[in-house]
Amino acid sequence: MSDIEQVARNAREASTALQSITSEQKSLILRAIKDKLAANKEVILAANEADKAKAKQEVEAGKLSASLFKRLDIEGKGGEKFETMLQGILDVDGLFDPIGQVSLARRLDDGLDLYRVTCPVGVCLVIFEARPEVVVNIACLAIKSSNAVILKGGKEAGATNQKLADLIREAIESTPTPAGATPFPMNAVQLVSRREDIDKLLDQDRYIDLVVPRGSNSLVRYIQGHTRIPVLGHADGICSVFLDESADVAKAPHLVVDSKTDYPAACNAAETLLVHSKALSTAFNEVAKALFAAGVKLHADDRVYKYLEAESGLSIPKGQLVQAQDDDFDKEFLDLEIAVRVVDSLDEAIAHINEHGSQHTDVIITESEANAETFMRRVGSAGVYWNASSRFADGFRYGFGTEVGVSTNKTHARGPVGLEGLTIYKYRIYGRGQGAGDYGIGAGKRSYKHEDIPLDPTVRNKFVI
Amino acid sequence: MSDIEQVARNAREASTALQSITSEQKSLILRAIKDKLAANKEVILAANEADKAKAKQEVEAGKLSASLFKRLDIEGKGGEKFETMLQGILDVDGLFDPIGQVSLARRLDDGLDLYRVTCPVGVCLVIFEARPEVVVNIACLAIKSSNAVILKGGKEAGATNQKLADLIREAIESTPTPAGATPFPMNAVQLVSRREDIDKLLDQDRYIDLVVPRGSNSLVRYIQGHTRIPVLGHADGICSVFLDESADVAKAPHLVVDSKTDYPAACNAAETLLVHSKALSTAFNEVAKALFAAGVKLHADDRVYKYLEAESGLSIPKGQLVQAQDDDFDKEFLDLEIAVRVVDSLDEAIAHINEHGSQHTDVIITESEANAETFMRRVGSAGVYWNASSRFADGFRYGFGTEVGVSTNKTHARGPVGLEGLTIYKYRIYGRGQGAGDYGIGAGKRSYKHEDIPLDPTVRNKFVI
Repeated sequence: MSDIEQVARNAREASTALQSITSEQKSLILRAIKDKLAANKEVILAANEADKAKAKQEVEAGKLSASLFKRLDIEGKGGEKFETMLQGILDVDGLFDPIGQVSLARRLDDGLDLYRVTCPVGVCLVIFEARPEVVVNIACLAIKSSNAVILKGGKEAGATNQKLADLIREAIESTPTPAGATPFPMNAVQLVSRREDIDKLLDQDRYIDLVVPRGSNSLVRYIQGHTRIPVLGHADGICSVFLDESADVAKAPHLVVDSKTDYPAACNAAETLLVHSKALSTAFNEVAKALFAAGVKLHADDRVYKYLEAESGLSIPKGQLVQAQDDDFDKEFLDLEIAVRVVDSLDEAIAHINEHGSQHTDVIITESEANAETFMRRVGSAGVYWNASSRFADGFRYGFGTEVGVSTNKTHARGPVGLEGLTIYKYRIYGRGQGAGDYGIGAGKRSYKHEDIPLDPTVRNKFVI
Repeated sequence: MSDIEQVARNAREASTALQSITSEQKSLILRAIKDKLAANKEVILAANEADKAKAKQEVEAGKLSASLFKRLDIEGKGGEKFETMLQGILDVDGLFDPIGQVSLARRLDDGLDLYRVTCPVGVCLVIFEARPEVVVNIACLAIKSSNAVILKGGKEAGATNQKLADLIREAIESTPTPAGATPFPMNAVQLVSRREDIDKLLDQDRYIDLVVPRGSNSLVRYIQGHTRIPVLGHADGICSVFLDESADVAKAPHLVVDSKTDYPAACNAAETLLVHSKALSTAFNEVAKALFAAGVKLHADDRVYKYLEAESGLSIPKGQLVQAQDDDFDKEFLDLEIAVRVVDSLDEAIAHINEHGSQHTDVIITESEANAETFMRRVGSAGVYWNASSRFADGFRYGFGTEVGVSTNKTHARGPVGLEGLTIYKYRIYGRGQGAGDYGIGAGKRSYKHEDIPLDPTVRNKFVI
């Protein structure tokens, strides 16, 4: 058995034990992790300094991007980032236990009760780059949801990741098990660091139930294409803003500028602006002015280009207007650039988004409620907004707390995904010895009752331990 | 563009239009389909007769299995199967509309409301063999959940499938669109019949959101291994029954015999019997007697074999006891055969099931509530039962009505899957022009309120149309 298969098997075994861990134990472990990390701040920062020193050389040698380097830091200004990470653990601890919740209860017959009960997905593999605080965030979310997790970090943060994982495992090991309880399994959290282990991990579909990639588009796309394990995540974030015929001139510039410029490198930043032909000389004129003022470069289709050049009366800053290429509408600029296209109807805008978008988040700016409703119904994305910035697509802004990731899947979980993305359900039946052959039509056969059992709090929490 | 890509694009376009279809329209269409099929019973049965005549030759030539042939029939004894199919349409019509349901509502700030709203998965591909009534079942479930569906049936039922699909599309076409409503798209239901189209369909991950295979293990495994589209289904059904130390001698024989023999070819039939060593001479003795009487062949491990031969005092019918091979515990017999193994503890039974089972349905027979709870928590399967037959794992028995399929996935939907397996959710935000940059710390910045909006019926059904 390879090392990696052993890691995956260990996780599966830990996952089995985790099913018997109580809410109280999870809370004890989370608080122990917080205390352990707080007490070891200096050694963590020292490991982080070592990573940063090495990474700095790589940046200078042109082998590592400056943005990746920036994400390596775990301390933050005045230690703020470190404190946020610790607070995040307490926030997760404070969430309600997502496991053992009854979502359906039904009396199939007297003495034959069916319950649908939430349970962990099982074993999750999280593959991430830079950002060592992901080790802590994800380990805590996994613990709270009774999942075993295998963390695969990037080598640029190798020392920090290792230190954090070691301390988490030490915290688990040194937390006393309450009398009569199942010992919390150490292998609930495992760290793997070699790049060449990724493919081996992606092959462990026998033991691993879910992969969560957190990193560049190319990393996510590679993972999606190389595993049979379900992947929760998103590669592209091609978000669009549609400026409808009746777009409010007072709202539109702020909405478009915020969607594009609030944080251009984010997946929820707008990459495409669709303009209703009747809004060209009204709302769009103000939007273009604001985008130019914000330093945004417009990749404009023919009609937009002509309008801006010949009719808008705007003075166009040098280099901020170019002719759009076809593939600009399938591109994530991740920079102060946006593709702009005219459409002649709401339907055309919707069709464009469903064809070219990435099912992440799309916005309509309109004063027509009917058009807003049609847009929000027909655009298939995880987020559909009316007169609100695409940048709201985020777990913190939704009030979900720490997020597992953002998903553009059409199944399981989508949008900003919190703990519920790491849970699923199973069906329990409590019988008294009945066989299925006892039911049916004919002499001596029984009939199903199929009576719903009301989900009062006692029933709902019946299986929380 | 290939024919198949066109089919997939058509489905995607239909899917967009389906988002604007009202509950009332779906009901009109479903009832029109029922009427159309009822009125055309004779032509459907004629097509079915043609399929059966061809298939009979294939059976005689040894090219088609008798069980597949049996499933081809759509009429049933006295037309009962046909009537059940028609009644199924009305049953689906009677279900509540699963689309537009609010499962979370939150005021992020005044005038900035977030709703999580159920929506269809989008485009579903259903690949099935024999059983032409699947065309009708699945088309109706898709319509009810506003999904577009591509049906790929087996060529053995080609004429019947085609007739059913044509009639469904005629029913859609001839149903008048209520004033002001979106016309119901014909391409909501499309049928594809050539075997060689399967691979092309499995490549259409750009347009198809979910594949539901309904057929043999080999078909399901092929599909799982040849597509990037999420697959909802199950290949194997290796269900186990564990006879615990305290198993009730009065309950055990009936439970094991029903689990094994009620319908041995079903995925929820038991294939493995695990026996606690302390139950060998008590409950197992009675179970073995009952299994022998029911004509079941036992593939026994060494300890069970020795016990039965030397100690049980049972007379063993000829050919009904053989030594188990290792791979018997990973096998779906689908016949009157069962693999039997001794374990020395509850934990060993759980480990065996999690290692060898298929995450379908597993049963513990015990009088110990503590052991039952541990088993139901730690066994990772979609169904975990205490003193109830594995054969209860079925949408009808759960009271779900027509089922999409049975899933052993760990994400999205598992166990018997009804309409909810064809739905997901999206997030809607209703704003007034806010940008994300308006929120934060500092002068002039706003704070999030994050107040939950109570899910009273008005809010819950706010987006049902």
